[in-house]
Amino acid sequence: MLYLIGLGLGDVKDITVKGLEIVRKCQRVYLEHYTSVLGSCTKEELEAFYGREIIMADRDLVESFDHEGSNEDEILKGASTDDVAVLVVGDPFGATTHHDLMLRAKEKGIETKAIHNASILNAVGACGLSLYKFGETVSIPFWQDEWKPESFYDRIVSNRKNGLHTLCLLDIKVKERSVENIMKKRNIFEPPRFMSTQQASQQLLEIIERRKKEGEGASNGSEVFDETAECVAMARIGCDDQKMVFGDLGQVMAHTDMGKPLHSLIIAGNIEDYEREALTPLKP
Amino acid sequence: MLYLIGLGLGDVKDITVKGLEIVRKCQRVYLEHYTSVLGSCTKEELEAFYGREIIMADRDLVESFDHEGSNEDEILKGASTDDVAVLVVGDPFGATTHHDLMLRAKEKGIETKAIHNASILNAVGACGLSLYKFGETVSIPFWQDEWKPESFYDRIVSNRKNGLHTLCLLDIKVKERSVENIMKKRNIFEPPRFMSTQQASQQLLEIIERRKKEGEGASNGSEVFDETAECVAMARIGCDDQKMVFGDLGQVMAHTDMGKPLHSLIIAGNIEDYEREALTPLKP
Repeated sequence: MLYLIGLGLGDVKDITVKGLEIVRKCQRVYLEHYTSVLGSCTKEELEAFYGREIIMADRDLVESFDHEGSNEDEILKGASTDDVAVLVVGDPFGATTHHDLMLRAKEKGIETKAIHNASILNAVGACGLSLYKFGETVSIPFWQDEWKPESFYDRIVSNRKNGLHTLCLLDIKVKERSVENIMKKRNIFEPPRFMSTQQASQQLLEIIERRKKEGEGASNGSEVFDETAECVAMARIGCDDQKMVFGDLGQVMAHTDMGKPLHSLIIAGNIEDYEREALTPLKP
Repeated sequence: MLYLIGLGLGDVKDITVKGLEIVRKCQRVYLEHYTSVLGSCTKEELEAFYGREIIMADRDLVESFDHEGSNEDEILKGASTDDVAVLVVGDPFGATTHHDLMLRAKEKGIETKAIHNASILNAVGACGLSLYKFGETVSIPFWQDEWKPESFYDRIVSNRKNGLHTLCLLDIKVKERSVENIMKKRNIFEPPRFMSTQQASQQLLEIIERRKKEGEGASNGSEVFDETAECVAMARIGCDDQKMVFGDLGQVMAHTDMGKPLHSLIIAGNIEDYEREALTPLKP
């Protein structure tokens, strides 16, 4: 059987009782660690708590498989008789890659089961904004010299036009190789990088500035979403040292150090009175 | 200290390890049971598992309080020295009423802490639709003879215009009194009612039919959302007997019996290939 088990957002004890019982009976336990990372515990702490060895699973291990049906799919090897767990930070279905794994298992006749847990997508409700009033979720990637996409900006504009809040998931780079190392086929990995709410805000402000210059009054989004937009910066949600700050994009978000990762940024839409009541204590 | 503890969606073992440890040390434990209900366990099973008596908390108990600052707020009584837990099905912030409770506690100088868990808002990812492509969430209420609101229909239309999926939360009536019993001040409660995906679909089809008749080609939403819309019916998500069905609103959703509550209905927007691959096995 293949189990996909959500770990929640904080430390070892955020796994569910059901999830823990399953992990402790599994023959092999993988930890997926490229779509997210655990807030405040290490692999060793997890191993001690579970009494199980943990195999770190990067993108290659989780996603690589052989279309010819041979047994190159290491995670699924023997899973029709053995119990195999893949641990996922948050909820198992926060990333579509885990659906692929489930489908591959089903194709091989392996039974599957998901154990749900908190995800950043629902835990952001902690700030006081109504979860029912969020529009499409966006991902903000690290810009590179020649690559500065801004489609996430237009999706935020579209949400704001409908009065909706936007959760911005901020980029994570884990086990990435430089272009040079990829070219030379060297398995040398860059140190992990996690986008801060400050970096995300600065990228957004750069887009807003460019649009305002280019637009000169035209409808290019900056009339709906500019530096005065109200936002919530969130860090380490679900951890003991979680932090939430409410303020505008230009003055507050771009200048507030939220500390260690992981960070998320919410661009608010129309804020109702009952939401503002909960947000007000979060002003810096 | 006031703890708000998410129970997840299924049975007693869906609480987190951290949540369970807290419940077992609390002096008083309340179960909020009007915004949602546990999928597959009873109050007695929870009490046996926790080794704690559970006080059922209806809307009056959770929301009623005295603005003058007297101690009518039963849940918060003594919570500056005692540990009090309020258990919430799903995640603590799935309903705004729980923010109110937190704010009232803070006003009285009582420390608060939330223990997150899975919510229907992220667990619906189990069907294969990307959680990032959901728009605003809507609630579909039971229609009454003289009261047939349809604002949820327009919000689904707005989501579909942007290619986004819509999660429809279906009405729950727990501990409701008839108009006659309210008038006569009798505390006689109606049996609980839970809207099925069939009932929700029929209400949606009634709106579509009316709009088509009234519209005669005008832009009233029915050109964007009609009976051919692709949907996912979900029942008892997170429970061992969860069920998911993928099909169109008119032929499939309106005629598929999903069994016991709780049900949710998703109206899909644009379905990407990778989403359709996961949905296809859910066809009836």
